[in-house]
Amino acid sequence: MKIIGEKINGTRKSVAAAIVTRNAEVIIALAKAQIECGADFLDINAGSTPDHETEDLVWLVHTVQNAVNVKLCLDSSRPEPLRAALKEVNQTPMINSISGEPKRLNDVLPLAAEHGCELIALALDEGGIPKTADKRLEVIRSMIKLTREQGLPDEKLYIDPLILSIATDGDAGKTTLDVIRRVCEEFPRVHITMGLSNVSFGLPKRALINRTFLTLALAAGMDSAIIDPTEPTMREILLATQLILGQDRFCRNYTKACRSGLLS
Amino acid sequence: MKIIGEKINGTRKSVAAAIVTRNAEVIIALAKAQIECGADFLDINAGSTPDHETEDLVWLVHTVQNAVNVKLCLDSSRPEPLRAALKEVNQTPMINSISGEPKRLNDVLPLAAEHGCELIALALDEGGIPKTADKRLEVIRSMIKLTREQGLPDEKLYIDPLILSIATDGDAGKTTLDVIRRVCEEFPRVHITMGLSNVSFGLPKRALINRTFLTLALAAGMDSAIIDPTEPTMREILLATQLILGQDRFCRNYTKACRSGLLS
Repeated sequence: MKIIGEKINGTRKSVAAAIVTRNAEVIIALAKAQIECGADFLDINAGSTPDHETEDLVWLVHTVQNAVNVKLCLDSSRPEPLRAALKEVNQTPMINSISGEPKRLNDVLPLAAEHGCELIALALDEGGIPKTADKRLEVIRSMIKLTREQGLPDEKLYIDPLILSIATDGDAGKTTLDVIRRVCEEFPRVHITMGLSNVSFGLPKRALINRTFLTLALAAGMDSAIIDPTEPTMREILLATQLILGQDRFCRNYTKACRSGLLS
Repeated sequence: MKIIGEKINGTRKSVAAAIVTRNAEVIIALAKAQIECGADFLDINAGSTPDHETEDLVWLVHTVQNAVNVKLCLDSSRPEPLRAALKEVNQTPMINSISGEPKRLNDVLPLAAEHGCELIALALDEGGIPKTADKRLEVIRSMIKLTREQGLPDEKLYIDPLILSIATDGDAGKTTLDVIRRVCEEFPRVHITMGLSNVSFGLPKRALINRTFLTLALAAGMDSAIIDPTEPTMREILLATQLILGQDRFCRNYTKACRSGLLS
């Protein structure tokens, strides 16, 4: 199970402000807190203002890797910031993300393949997010055909099956769980990761829905997640789920976390 | 989804005391609270002292059904208390339970078949709880052969796949989830129910493990559970799971429960 810590994201107000003012302390605190709570990768997103995304992303890379030793997940859909950041990283990073959109495929996939990066691929194309599992599988198959052609091993690919809000589509959860199961079956060496929070958009008590969805996605075969690992209720349900699914030998991680007081 | 409220159980100290002193108020309060929180059945267990289980169970039946209108689940492994209680019930009750043990099969199954009761059947036999899913399925198949022979329709049968503690068997969760999936596939009209709490025996933060296991069991196909419906964290995870699994049309139950303030 690989946890991708989501908190260093320039679309969040406090992070955007820290980037503008070059406040390294704020960024380093977010990095350290997530690593302490078990993050395997830190997602690094410099926000979406194209005129200075490149220098902002490079600053974030320097700031984080000068303070902590962790794999980064460079979060951008544009090749320039990614190319610049790739020159600066100490360890081969993950890239977040490509999709079935031809521009992103052409721009970002060759970079990931050339640098041997792990790569997140979103199950959408120029038509948007397909509503049915069948159509989403079609997009995924097309992407995997291309990642293989470019020499990226399946083990380095993380499919994000995407989740729509249950408030607007009552079958959204079932559809995504179905996509996860089918990807696992059809491409056993490919990983599955996901940002979860869209599932609860428009509904009350979102954190409850998000963490329950985490349990269901893990049971379906997801083996990575883009989450806030510092959130105790998210961490505890992750540990309890892995315990029940037989992924926690001798209950060690669970009992250790209970003893450490990290749970809610 | 059928909720069987577990709180009127004579093996609990406060209930045992209420039974001894014939304190109807205590029992009625437990009945009303569970119904308000969505119980479809109330489990009624008079404790395990053979010399007065029969009169105690009959008293519980009278006490509950004089106060509320709900289906009862008569919880005993012995035919005498069940036979006496069956004479007193207003509505055809559920019976909890038979197992693959010949004595319980011979004593209780004919009663359930004769009265057209819904019936819980535990996946164990005279050898105890089989450790593997394959062996548990064998016990279940043998029981279903007999329930069918005695004319009990599959729709009235609730298989309890049983759960061992994860503290003593790290694969206990996987095994039980596997049993649930296989029973659903092999016997699509048979229901699945379960008492959950044994999963966490010997571990810290048991309620967290129990409710996470509820989510996983529902996703595997369980369509009933023996729980305390008045426990807000159990109720909220049940609602969130049903929401995500597409079992809550227009998110009605979930949003209604949030508005009512019944969640934690």
